Amino acid sequence: MYSILGGSNALASSSKMTIPARRVLAAASSRAQKRSFSSTAPAREPSNARNLQTQTQTHIPPRPDPIFPCVDAHSARATRVQHRRPPFLPAAHIPPAAATSQGKTVSELSASEPGAGPEPAYSFPTGYETYHHSEPFELSYSTIPLPAFDLAYETWGTLNADKSNAILLHTGLSASSHAASTAKNSAEGWWEAFIGPGKPIDTSKYFVICTNVLGGCYGSTGPSSHDPSSPNGDPYATRFPVLSIFDMVRAQFHLLDYLGIDKLYASVGCSMGGMQSLAAGWLEPDRVQRIVSISGTARSSPGSIAMRFAQRSVLMADPNWNRGFYYHGQPPHTGMKLARQIATITYRSGPEWELRFGRKLRDIPLSVSSADGNPNLEGRTPTGARVPALCPDFLIETYLDHQGESFCLKYDANSLIYISKAMDLFDMTEEALADLPFQSRPRAAEEHQTHGRQRQPLSLSPPAAYLPSLAKGLAPLRDIPTLVLGIQSDILFPVEQQREVADALRMAGNHQVVFYELGGVWGHDTFLIDVANVGGAIRGFLH
Amino acid sequence: MYSILGGSNALASSSKMTIPARRVLAAASSRAQKRSFSSTAPAREPSNARNLQTQTQTHIPPRPDPIFPCVDAHSARATRVQHRRPPFLPAAHIPPAAATSQGKTVSELSASEPGAGPEPAYSFPTGYETYHHSEPFELSYSTIPLPAFDLAYETWGTLNADKSNAILLHTGLSASSHAASTAKNSAEGWWEAFIGPGKPIDTSKYFVICTNVLGGCYGSTGPSSHDPSSPNGDPYATRFPVLSIFDMVRAQFHLLDYLGIDKLYASVGCSMGGMQSLAAGWLEPDRVQRIVSISGTARSSPGSIAMRFAQRSVLMADPNWNRGFYYHGQPPHTGMKLARQIATITYRSGPEWELRFGRKLRDIPLSVSSADGNPNLEGRTPTGARVPALCPDFLIETYLDHQGESFCLKYDANSLIYISKAMDLFDMTEEALADLPFQSRPRAAEEHQTHGRQRQPLSLSPPAAYLPSLAKGLAPLRDIPTLVLGIQSDILFPVEQQREVADALRMAGNHQVVFYELGGVWGHDTFLIDVANVGGAIRGFLH
Repeated sequence: MYSILGGSNALASSSKMTIPARRVLAAASSRAQKRSFSSTAPAREPSNARNLQTQTQTHIPPRPDPIFPCVDAHSARATRVQHRRPPFLPAAHIPPAAATSQGKTVSELSASEPGAGPEPAYSFPTGYETYHHSEPFELSYSTIPLPAFDLAYETWGTLNADKSNAILLHTGLSASSHAASTAKNSAEGWWEAFIGPGKPIDTSKYFVICTNVLGGCYGSTGPSSHDPSSPNGDPYATRFPVLSIFDMVRAQFHLLDYLGIDKLYASVGCSMGGMQSLAAGWLEPDRVQRIVSISGTARSSPGSIAMRFAQRSVLMADPNWNRGFYYHGQPPHTGMKLARQIATITYRSGPEWELRFGRKLRDIPLSVSSADGNPNLEGRTPTGARVPALCPDFLIETYLDHQGESFCLKYDANSLIYISKAMDLFDMTEEALADLPFQSRPRAAEEHQTHGRQRQPLSLSPPAAYLPSLAKGLAPLRDIPTLVLGIQSDILFPVEQQREVADALRMAGNHQVVFYELGGVWGHDTFLIDVANVGGAIRGFLH
Repeated sequence: MYSILGGSNALASSSKMTIPARRVLAAASSRAQKRSFSSTAPAREPSNARNLQTQTQTHIPPRPDPIFPCVDAHSARATRVQHRRPPFLPAAHIPPAAATSQGKTVSELSASEPGAGPEPAYSFPTGYETYHHSEPFELSYSTIPLPAFDLAYETWGTLNADKSNAILLHTGLSASSHAASTAKNSAEGWWEAFIGPGKPIDTSKYFVICTNVLGGCYGSTGPSSHDPSSPNGDPYATRFPVLSIFDMVRAQFHLLDYLGIDKLYASVGCSMGGMQSLAAGWLEPDRVQRIVSISGTARSSPGSIAMRFAQRSVLMADPNWNRGFYYHGQPPHTGMKLARQIATITYRSGPEWELRFGRKLRDIPLSVSSADGNPNLEGRTPTGARVPALCPDFLIETYLDHQGESFCLKYDANSLIYISKAMDLFDMTEEALADLPFQSRPRAAEEHQTHGRQRQPLSLSPPAAYLPSLAKGLAPLRDIPTLVLGIQSDILFPVEQQREVADALRMAGNHQVVFYELGGVWGHDTFLIDVANVGGAIRGFLH
């Protein structure tokens, strides 16, 4: 006899099944195509808690050993990774044995993408340009400057003669410079539908620049980069300094200097890119003519810090993380998978999953074979009945599992930690800005004339206590037309924070603030998906 | 010279500091009392991205090794755990060497609770009664019954002569039977303020029973319990069968039989207890005279499954978990800590943390010494300047860290996994209920007369597609007065789900549904904290 939960041991002992169990399994088999959990159902006639116990035999055989394919996946991945180098690791850091098979990357080992669903493309950038900054670069939180840095970037469109049509595009946490396909890299970018001739950011009119942020792992200097002070040529790892969003943007201004671009037509960004977009306006108000901040914030909230803290915690607890010094060994792929699962929860919304997955179970073919020729019993009994498992079962679980698995070797764990921390540290209240070692570069014509009547706050609730300080912090942006856009289903950068940015700008005297709130169920990721509404707002604002 | 990020290595090399660094540190020291991050601030005069790079020297010394006290905490805990048994482990399962020091439990090793904040008490139950069920117990998802089970329970008040004043109280995921202090156990219970003479659940009128659920680890049979089919007397571990909420409640009805209680004055529960409360009404509509469901649901949503999946994933990825077979070794305390951090995020709300913590940093004394006599440099330079760290820094981070640390050895990891999974599986739509091997026990007088006009749905949005099926599933509860209460800031059991329960009951013909929505910032945990509003609603309904 065996449990409906049985694994391979159960199959081996199936010849010992008692009659009642056989009857159950036969009944279960007839319902095997149903997309719901089958029950033991020895008796379908009305029964209740008080009489069920009398229906069964007294001899209880041992329960079979459980199976956990979702846990096995971690060790299986570890075995695969040993033979192929993670693509974010510079070849110089790979021990010779591993480097011999560098033709393929581990990303090719990921499970295939489920067809349905609006997931953005995630591809490794190739064919980007690199700006090399050879002089020491001061940082917000470290007395030791970065001795030099690289910044990977890509461009779309043509810079016009007077260099007045440049748009600097800022990315979210883990994105590369590959926002859209180029002649050098035809792969779809993360904002493919938004950038191109005739698209919301129209490259027949604008020259668009996108960088991999400082601290990243897609061509720009970050923790995985060579530490010039290391005698062995080791990467910085966690000797890399803590960065600020302002440091990232200051590095981008050096690139603009190099490109000879004095004024930006616009600074555009979503999520962390929205923070950068505001930071650019603050650092160099005279060089930024328009700001777009979508699903960003001017002050990271404790709620969003909590979500990022949970991700960093699981990552840093992975023994492979090894205090950040994993570049000669296995990267913390399990921690990265777990962190990405958590992140994905914050990127979407419950209502989306309700519409997309509901309580549907993953599909398990009635007859599947494992490599050793035995039936794969995960989630089904040998007769095909569907039973609950502790590993992913509901489609929402397989979705999160897949998102984690797809990402866990595509990005450097230390880059994730450092950039995530930089987001936590971002705070444009006057009080916090005063602690930075650099200040806003004032305009030539300084005195600002407040004109018109005071605007009412957008929030229906009493404004946050820090709003006046935020307004003072954002004062340098008061003459820059700014588009602020938020999503009502966003749980990571809630729409209240978007109203706050708009309110603070208007309190600072900015009379050119455009503010939109979007509905829909896509949560924080709306900016990657909703071309009609997000793209339309950008197009209208940039015109 | 050294970085402002420096650890103990940094101190050792401080005599080699260059003059600019010394100047920086002196400046930083003068601001050390500020509750914000200090900057490197070599020059506080106006500067910008383009000229900062010229202010610094070209020789770049090696960066110091980073320190990670939050990671060290995991291995330190592992060392401590080796000498003291986790309290949820039955003594029989402890190897002899470890059992010698069983006088103290690891809970005593937890960090002290921060004084501020409305955290409920969490204490190990002692002095509970145990109901032993000696006959096999059929289960929802397994062909093998449980051969027997124990159910730990406590009671408050006095059962009256006709046994008509009994209230069955159902717990949340990880709570014990110790809902309030008793003569046998004077420690505060998890609902201390709600239960007692004159309190919302008035024990001068009612006889209150609370159990540790089946699957738990506080006296009831669960994965950590002895598996009678094991020749070595091992615990079930993950050979334990997957349970349903209905199984838990059916076990409770056996306890009621034993106590001679035929009818419940009320079935009351919050969170998972709300699920159980509804399940009790469905299983035995004739035995349940009133239902209270607070922050529960009649159908787990994919959003809440996602949150619980993330917790189970980090727990099962802990190597100590060992597929659930850890009872002879170290429990997965790191995975438990990480899981609890995630859980805590879902129990509260961003607005609460904004009010409670804002962006405040943890307090680090200017002069603290480590065990070896060296200054503790975590978070401060030797001169006292406050710098960002990758380990917990903001109060919200230390709060989550502390919640995880306090919990990680107080509860059995397998119990968490099984009960969390049972919550995911809970679904009272007609379609899902049809798959259970037991059905609702119909009332004697079956035909229900629908009277009065059709109620309008409480939701402002179009109702979910499954609402009619939920109404059919809840039909057996149509004659039971039911209190449904939800919290607008709850992200785990959103208020929409509470409206759904109320709507489905009313669609089923229940004309005695009381529905409240509460504001406030406490999120899901409101039921533990808000005595005035939650307690008041219960008192008014039970009267």
